[in-house]
Amino acid sequence: MGVSDVRKEFFEGRIKSRELEFAILERVFGKDPEKWSESNVKAASLRLEELENKMNKKFEGIRNSYVDNSSVKRDTPTTGIEQKIGGASVPLGVIGPVKILGSYAKGEFYLPLATNEAALVAGINRGFKIINEAGGIKSIVVKDHMARAPLIETPDPEKAKEISDKIREKRELYQEMKKAAESESRVSRLLDIQPFQIGRRVHLRFYFQTGDSMGMNSATKYSANAIKVLREKYPFVRLRSLTGNLCTDKKASHINVLLGRGKSVETHVVIPREVVKKIFKVEPEIIVELNQLKNYQGSSLAGTISGFNANVANTIAAMFIATGQDCAQITESSSCFIHAEMQGDNLIFGVTLPCLEIATVGGGTGFGTAKECLEILGCYGPGDPPGSNAKKLAEIIGAAVTAQDLNLIAAEAHEYELAESHIKLARGK
Amino acid sequence: MGVSDVRKEFFEGRIKSRELEFAILERVFGKDPEKWSESNVKAASLRLEELENKMNKKFEGIRNSYVDNSSVKRDTPTTGIEQKIGGASVPLGVIGPVKILGSYAKGEFYLPLATNEAALVAGINRGFKIINEAGGIKSIVVKDHMARAPLIETPDPEKAKEISDKIREKRELYQEMKKAAESESRVSRLLDIQPFQIGRRVHLRFYFQTGDSMGMNSATKYSANAIKVLREKYPFVRLRSLTGNLCTDKKASHINVLLGRGKSVETHVVIPREVVKKIFKVEPEIIVELNQLKNYQGSSLAGTISGFNANVANTIAAMFIATGQDCAQITESSSCFIHAEMQGDNLIFGVTLPCLEIATVGGGTGFGTAKECLEILGCYGPGDPPGSNAKKLAEIIGAAVTAQDLNLIAAEAHEYELAESHIKLARGK
Amino acid sequence: MGVSDVRKEFFEGRIKSRELEFAILERVFGKDPEKWSESNVKAASLRLEELENKMNKKFEGIRNSYVDNSSVKRDTPTTGIEQKIGGASVPLGVIGPVKILGSYAKGEFYLPLATNEAALVAGINRGFKIINEAGGIKSIVVKDHMARAPLIETPDPEKAKEISDKIREKRELYQEMKKAAESESRVSRLLDIQPFQIGRRVHLRFYFQTGDSMGMNSATKYSANAIKVLREKYPFVRLRSLTGNLCTDKKASHINVLLGRGKSVETHVVIPREVVKKIFKVEPEIIVELNQLKNYQGSSLAGTISGFNANVANTIAAMFIATGQDCAQITESSSCFIHAEMQGDNLIFGVTLPCLEIATVGGGTGFGTAKECLEILGCYGPGDPPGSNAKKLAEIIGAAVTAQDLNLIAAEAHEYELAESHIKLARGK
Amino acid sequence: MGVSDVRKEFFEGRIKSRELEFAILERVFGKDPEKWSESNVKAASLRLEELENKMNKKFEGIRNSYVDNSSVKRDTPTTGIEQKIGGASVPLGVIGPVKILGSYAKGEFYLPLATNEAALVAGINRGFKIINEAGGIKSIVVKDHMARAPLIETPDPEKAKEISDKIREKRELYQEMKKAAESESRVSRLLDIQPFQIGRRVHLRFYFQTGDSMGMNSATKYSANAIKVLREKYPFVRLRSLTGNLCTDKKASHINVLLGRGKSVETHVVIPREVVKKIFKVEPEIIVELNQLKNYQGSSLAGTISGFNANVANTIAAMFIATGQDCAQITESSSCFIHAEMQGDNLIFGVTLPCLEIATVGGGTGFGTAKECLEILGCYGPGDPPGSNAKKLAEIIGAAVTAQDLNLIAAEAHEYELAESHIKLARGK
Repeated sequence: MGVSDVRKEFFEGRIKSRELEFAILERVFGKDPEKWSESNVKAASLRLEELENKMNKKFEGIRNSYVDNSSVKRDTPTTGIEQKIGGASVPLGVIGPVKILGSYAKGEFYLPLATNEAALVAGINRGFKIINEAGGIKSIVVKDHMARAPLIETPDPEKAKEISDKIREKRELYQEMKKAAESESRVSRLLDIQPFQIGRRVHLRFYFQTGDSMGMNSATKYSANAIKVLREKYPFVRLRSLTGNLCTDKKASHINVLLGRGKSVETHVVIPREVVKKIFKVEPEIIVELNQLKNYQGSSLAGTISGFNANVANTIAAMFIATGQDCAQITESSSCFIHAEMQGDNLIFGVTLPCLEIATVGGGTGFGTAKECLEILGCYGPGDPPGSNAKKLAEIIGAAVTAQDLNLIAAEAHEYELAESHIKLARGK
Repeated sequence: MGVSDVRKEFFEGRIKSRELEFAILERVFGKDPEKWSESNVKAASLRLEELENKMNKKFEGIRNSYVDNSSVKRDTPTTGIEQKIGGASVPLGVIGPVKILGSYAKGEFYLPLATNEAALVAGINRGFKIINEAGGIKSIVVKDHMARAPLIETPDPEKAKEISDKIREKRELYQEMKKAAESESRVSRLLDIQPFQIGRRVHLRFYFQTGDSMGMNSATKYSANAIKVLREKYPFVRLRSLTGNLCTDKKASHINVLLGRGKSVETHVVIPREVVKKIFKVEPEIIVELNQLKNYQGSSLAGTISGFNANVANTIAAMFIATGQDCAQITESSSCFIHAEMQGDNLIFGVTLPCLEIATVGGGTGFGTAKECLEILGCYGPGDPPGSNAKKLAEIIGAAVTAQDLNLIAAEAHEYELAESHIKLARGK
Repeated sequence: MGVSDVRKEFFEGRIKSRELEFAILERVFGKDPEKWSESNVKAASLRLEELENKMNKKFEGIRNSYVDNSSVKRDTPTTGIEQKIGGASVPLGVIGPVKILGSYAKGEFYLPLATNEAALVAGINRGFKIINEAGGIKSIVVKDHMARAPLIETPDPEKAKEISDKIREKRELYQEMKKAAESESRVSRLLDIQPFQIGRRVHLRFYFQTGDSMGMNSATKYSANAIKVLREKYPFVRLRSLTGNLCTDKKASHINVLLGRGKSVETHVVIPREVVKKIFKVEPEIIVELNQLKNYQGSSLAGTISGFNANVANTIAAMFIATGQDCAQITESSSCFIHAEMQGDNLIFGVTLPCLEIATVGGGTGFGTAKECLEILGCYGPGDPPGSNAKKLAEIIGAAVTAQDLNLIAAEAHEYELAESHIKLARGK
Repeated sequence: MGVSDVRKEFFEGRIKSRELEFAILERVFGKDPEKWSESNVKAASLRLEELENKMNKKFEGIRNSYVDNSSVKRDTPTTGIEQKIGGASVPLGVIGPVKILGSYAKGEFYLPLATNEAALVAGINRGFKIINEAGGIKSIVVKDHMARAPLIETPDPEKAKEISDKIREKRELYQEMKKAAESESRVSRLLDIQPFQIGRRVHLRFYFQTGDSMGMNSATKYSANAIKVLREKYPFVRLRSLTGNLCTDKKASHINVLLGRGKSVETHVVIPREVVKKIFKVEPEIIVELNQLKNYQGSSLAGTISGFNANVANTIAAMFIATGQDCAQITESSSCFIHAEMQGDNLIFGVTLPCLEIATVGGGTGFGTAKECLEILGCYGPGDPPGSNAKKLAEIIGAAVTAQDLNLIAAEAHEYELAESHIKLARGK
């Protein structure tokens, strides 16, 4: 049986869209696992063709941008995502070399940035120009964990307190839960379980070290395993939800800002007054003052709990798309505090990124352009030791974010400069 | 002079990277504007080649995903973004047909979703299965404006009050500022200027109606024009920054949640108990209760000011990448409140998206796969009347977001269902 | 019948505690309204006696601190609060004269402060010492309204939008609601109704100008009257609650910070460097920097949305208790931003109090020590014009708050000074 | 020398106001420490007389409400607060007996409430009526600590990380800091030090167990002692401020809500449907729904991070004033989540008060009416074991808060009931 037969059956509705990859593998390739990738390509093409027919339009861009994220793990074929038709492509620019003085990211780097935002690539570039001239930027990971917080329910607040206290004690109950949480993993280690009681319920925030993977899926599974142990020992406990939103995933929240999630990154660059003036045409004290008025007072008045910065989400988004991160996590990963202060005659500039959630293995990182962009950055795949590639990537993103906001705040220090540079660049000058 | 000559000069460092497109246009094509697009392709290819040489690797994915977002406007050639090397491609899936009962989005739609998240496409699909069975989902835009908030400075709080009061009066000063703000635009209209005084400074939040474009760049420029008028009449006023973070752009903030930015969308679906039970295998009251415990109490305890939902950022991100939106705005556009309540024997489910910032013209919407995805949705380009395409897109995204969170919360209502369905789907089952 | 008879009946349980005042008035004084005050004194004394008997203790302090807040309005006798037994007394200190340059509070003032906090009175005094030396402090009210936000319910989001839009139009519906809202009032004027839609419900935030009274009770009643009109015209509207917490009363909230409630006060003092150094023994730049690190960055990291100050709640509480304000409103009235910046060689210092809720008539302001403290401040009772006394009080509180935080931040600028001065003062030195 | 001589010197300005108590003790009583209290009375009276002369008015209420909070500790006389002139008196009501099933507060209690708010005492009373009928309310303290967070400064983020990691290790450095923190105390114990890094600075949040005292002053002093040790071992550490606002004291903040400060209290009452209907004339499901719409959705839309309740600040304020607490702490102590849910045919109602800061020794608790009110509650002075009286008070306040919000939400469930009951009660009916 050939692809054309499958095509016919699919177009006639006899094969369901979501079964297409499997149907091709089975009928065309006799279940040969070597042909799984090819089955995926063909399935996506057929789906797209059907859509083109319905719309009476051609979508060549989508077809050409196809990303093969199918795989076969432990004999189980996966399509990556469901109902694939191709890929969505975002313009990619590059800057570099830029000088980073991290613990893992040491040396000179080229940064790929996927964005539709005119002026962004140029802006980061300009920020790094001054950073390079100042000798490079320090960037370090100060905390590192993935959090998952199942919500459990007990009959009354006294019981909820009993469970919370038991877990806080870190004795037998905690140890058994830890053992269960780590039982299926090679890499992940449970760092802590923090109970947050509210009435007769408790949010149990599990903290895992997850190596180079972002760790959400494993943290979900492993904390579920720990909850099973808890329920065996305390049958009055019910699992209300595997997450009660205290993780917090894909929402901006103060708990992530305060207690961290993913990598917590700090950067720091020391720039002599003369360098600031030469490149930005502005006295550094004005940058310091604007940082206070805009990124702290303005942001406070706006009612943010995470956005004490000018525009770091632009860089976060550009690097997340480029490197195959989970782009919904731009929401909280762009939480950021900007630091700007004078020390003698130097401008000290840096950022705190409390909850940067990234990976170099798993999710979208292993395929297509994401893999290539991670290669450009020198941190594709698992690091040696485990976790070192993800930390390297975190340090690089921290540096890029710093360069961008430094440039933007400096530019805003000139009254109309933002509007004008923005408009001009959008016009291609 | 041929491309190979330019290539040589570029590789030898005699042509700067950022001037490459212009050098090719001039030297290879004699400044023929018809050749601007081709110049961009070649420039990106040369840059990528240079990078490949440095890395000693090939990046075919990036080359193949190239997006041509160059253009020539009013005789000015623009590169779209700077320093292009190609494109970053994200896997694209599709679901549909789904039934939407919007004011602009009426009928059946296919939704393109760009994501690396296994289970997302399937989850939205399942949510729409129940929505379709319930007869479709209402989705409307209840507010629509783009906000930009320059920060002005006066000598003391009395002067700041004077300016604030004058603008609030909506008399002469306001009218002249409005006139200036609208002077360069065909489409944008100034809706209001809202002063927020803080000490001797005032954040002036300008509200614009911006048609089918997202409107940030124009709002920046037009409010700058209005500030010029203000400064002429009140020379003691200084413009501190074209934005003091009260806009708020690319940060999660309560001001956007409360006062809106972009489109404010409401959705509403009425689902009979039997339909809920048939598809989700759960009593609707449990969904209502979980929504309270997780999306409100849990989120409140987590300290969010915008994230009263389970996971809408996933859908927002998938549709933003697919349709060429500004992905940094996922940060605030994913602000969302979920509604779930019983009305008699029906489950009422819906969402409030207070600040969904989107466009169907401008930015990344006009090129490559983004254009194609907007075509699939039937809202590519300017609408007739102006603004109707952007509102249509907003209604569709609102519906998709609702489908996803409905499915997720229903799934979480079964204790271990999330972990298990998640893991299984990631394995391709 | 004498008091002793009533006492006997009360002790034997034949007169209910809550009816005691009325029983005495009726049985002892033959319903003579002139004797209402005396009836209240006796009732409180009997209740206290009964409690003393039960506890087998004497509570002379409570008896001696009795506050007569009973009154007879329009022939209706009221007890002020229910179940009175006497008063609770808080130590009262005084500082002055202090120089205030307000629009209403002009000249020199003595400030009564009711507090148990050692060092507070001395601290405010020290702050005013520098303010007096700098020539006094400007303090103005920049906004003034009381807000009440009933929550209404409609069948679906479209209907909720319809109502919201109608009210925003400010045409017939709005005018009729305004008329109803103002119908029972001599002083209050409706300034605006602002709709906040969420799903099929709308929070209608009513803004009233309420003269010298705090205005909560009247705003509640008058907005209820307006809702009646709304329901007559739109019978599908249901009143869900007379407040849906968007007012916001007695909770710290960003809506009050952003949009104001009660008086919005700004203060401003210009202090020459030499004066700062002479009195605080510190360079003013260190004050500026500490304000940023502590009141903005620290507070932001702590996850506040209202507390960008060091300690203003102390002064707010001390003046609220002294002047008979609603002390539950300390919660939001202490929302405050501190300003500290250099202008040439001067330190500019000031505060923004966005939502200071106070009164000089109504509530506890008309009786006992509260009345006397308002007399000390020169703002007891209704002002001429109406509202001027309340604004005067707001300006004074603004000045006091500024003095205290100025002193505290200056003190903290010396590393161990706070701890040491605090401890020493608590010891009476 | 007699009082009249001191009076003369004081009125002529030869004795400073702040030295009056000491002058009287010395000149009139020959430094007899037994006469310190009397010296304080006379000094306050003279100050008030001077003020009366200046104002040309009599302030008998202030004089009669005088609170003697002077004391002599370790031979050091203290005035309590500075510049005393008398007292400020707030009307005091009482309710009871109420049934509380706490761990420390067990049995029946009478509650003194100091307030100017008509209807408050009656409202709490009505709430307890239903609680009593349901058999009483559980109320427990689930966490208990006082937090103080000095802000330290290091040269760069790496050094800040080094210090943070060292302290988190809980080895030698932590132990030495702990030893120093506990060196001067009989009761206080250091529970933890939690570092929050931000750039090159670290907020060190010290957690102390402080027995029956509120603990702020001791926590300040003891953490300063620990910082001294830190600085000796790490001379690059500078103490920036003894508090960087992460404590958080006297500001509403999410850190207190999440991590606690003072007592964290949980309450829980189970009320049969028929009891709800009999007393509140409303189905319990409407209470559950209103709690969600108002206290969670409404409060979230209002942008609160602490106020998920209807009105608990009223009760907090009334009991704080009555019992001599630090009334500035009403700000954060009124942080509260309300719980309302159906369990079978019962309404489960309760509250979470995450950061209730109270004392039964120290501050204003030992004098005058505050002492008497604590006696009425049966928790005056140090408890046996230490801390048990403060916990008892916390449980009682938790119960009172629950009663009030239960009553208020039930009342609001009837559309116009709030406005009408409020107005009527204010009129004395």
